[in-house]
Amino acid sequence: MLSVEFIENQIKILDQTKLPFKEEHITLKSAEEVSDAIKSMKVRGAPAIGIAAAYALSISENPEDDYAVLLSSRPTAVDLKNALDLVAKGETPEQRKELASSWQAIISEACASIAENGASLLENSKNILTHCNTGAIATGVEYGTALGAVKKLKEQGKDIFVYVAETRPRMQGAITSWELGRLDIPNSVIVDSAAGYFISSGKVDAIIVGADRIAANGDFANKVGTYPLAVLAKENSVPFYVAAPLSSFDFSIDSGESIRIEMRDEKEVIGDNYSEGTSALNPAFDITPARYVTRFITEKGIFSPEGVGSIGKIHRS
Amino acid sequence: MLSVEFIENQIKILDQTKLPFKEEHITLKSAEEVSDAIKSMKVRGAPAIGIAAAYALSISENPEDDYAVLLSSRPTAVDLKNALDLVAKGETPEQRKELASSWQAIISEACASIAENGASLLENSKNILTHCNTGAIATGVEYGTALGAVKKLKEQGKDIFVYVAETRPRMQGAITSWELGRLDIPNSVIVDSAAGYFISSGKVDAIIVGADRIAANGDFANKVGTYPLAVLAKENSVPFYVAAPLSSFDFSIDSGESIRIEMRDEKEVIGDNYSEGTSALNPAFDITPARYVTRFITEKGIFSPEGVGSIGKIHRS
Repeated sequence: MLSVEFIENQIKILDQTKLPFKEEHITLKSAEEVSDAIKSMKVRGAPAIGIAAAYALSISENPEDDYAVLLSSRPTAVDLKNALDLVAKGETPEQRKELASSWQAIISEACASIAENGASLLENSKNILTHCNTGAIATGVEYGTALGAVKKLKEQGKDIFVYVAETRPRMQGAITSWELGRLDIPNSVIVDSAAGYFISSGKVDAIIVGADRIAANGDFANKVGTYPLAVLAKENSVPFYVAAPLSSFDFSIDSGESIRIEMRDEKEVIGDNYSEGTSALNPAFDITPARYVTRFITEKGIFSPEGVGSIGKIHRS
Repeated sequence: MLSVEFIENQIKILDQTKLPFKEEHITLKSAEEVSDAIKSMKVRGAPAIGIAAAYALSISENPEDDYAVLLSSRPTAVDLKNALDLVAKGETPEQRKELASSWQAIISEACASIAENGASLLENSKNILTHCNTGAIATGVEYGTALGAVKKLKEQGKDIFVYVAETRPRMQGAITSWELGRLDIPNSVIVDSAAGYFISSGKVDAIIVGADRIAANGDFANKVGTYPLAVLAKENSVPFYVAAPLSSFDFSIDSGESIRIEMRDEKEVIGDNYSEGTSALNPAFDITPARYVTRFITEKGIFSPEGVGSIGKIHRS
């Protein structure tokens, strides 16, 4: 079953905070419940958030108010806004439900194409490094984004190995490692800061990540730790790929400077390791300038940083 | 009291695995006990390891065998070998004890000078980022290395703020934050991968780290995560300083390629966050090429990467 489903007027999600130990599905019955689940990261991953929010808006009795409630759940990922904007076009509950369902279908098709396109770029990459979790869990459809391409390589019979960055502070790497295990793809977890060791030792053939919001010029926000990987990739001439559906593009902003970065609770960082009085700063995302990206992988094809502007034109046409 | 002391023929160390919650001093009575404490990181930090090992060898009844036991405790830090080599020159137990004690005095003086020299370089840096722990805890003397310079700035009345990289997997950042708190220096912990966010946002004026082993050409091994910081610093034109005593230089090797990187137990990484069957790779250090270093700070002065070769000549003279 998918990580987000719409069943009998309710939104059923896989509670990602219980992974990798327990696959627990919970049922959400209102925009507020979905908003809370997004804030607490029970549902996470830009495309999955968008789908959950789309369904939440479709069952709302006060769509205008709930649009705002849902939109404010997390500020960085743009899928959320794109999904809500589509559903808001429906004039009746029935139309809104149809639009929400069509949104999930769009994402599903997009991610399947991204997986194909990504696998073609990665066909000669044996050792792949990824950050955060971009698997099917994070998209709410059959394929993930960056990890969808990795899954496709496996389906094509390729011999691959994945370095999984643990992704502090929330350890989404644990979900990635668990998903890869289920796909029978060999992988090892590393601490985020060890990526430099493996990249500079020539042990990484390619890096592939997702994106939470991509500006018109290709600058993008993604899980904190993405930008250092991009810089390390460039410095060591390792290709750095970004896999994301068009729904993750924000053509209304020119560059990464306009992307708002969510600062989350310091307790996510400090946990039990610190003495009282310790403070922490906890940006959930960072911005990677487009020039660090070797290729953007979308459902509409593969784009260079210079060509990323043309995606906007395709999208509008 | 210092983190390593020699009292009545026994080695008294601060058990760093109990920090920041408990200041527990334990007494070690043999080379094997000291070797175990080094392996388990009860005593850690290249200079502190060297001092503890020096005293351990000085009380050994089988110095030849125990030299090997102690040397093999951890492979990367060269202080260990330099300290043992000095003590091994003693022909009687009395001589060896004197040499061990003189080693601690040498390190103490060196770190005091490093603090002075480092503070002069950092005098216009308000926001300083550091990695791992290089405080007095890690040196076994009054001043730390990189953090010694920060302490000196505070003593000079400078208004400073420190970004403390948490330093997965062992969270030495917790010790650093605790030491800074005791020195009344404002600081915030960040996850290691968030360094890129703060550096690229212009919030970091300088980065200062220690070193476990510096080759003759200035390439150096330090806690894993150091190399990414150096690359990020260069990319964002932020000065990157390495503070280390001459005892951390290994003039017998030409470059970083000859430095052996310790791989530690995967359990340090995986902890309780992962499902069964997950594997991890856990390099404890990485190598930073000399060209990324703005300045090396030693007790003999401040050196550019190009000038680092001359340190060897000073050392030998």
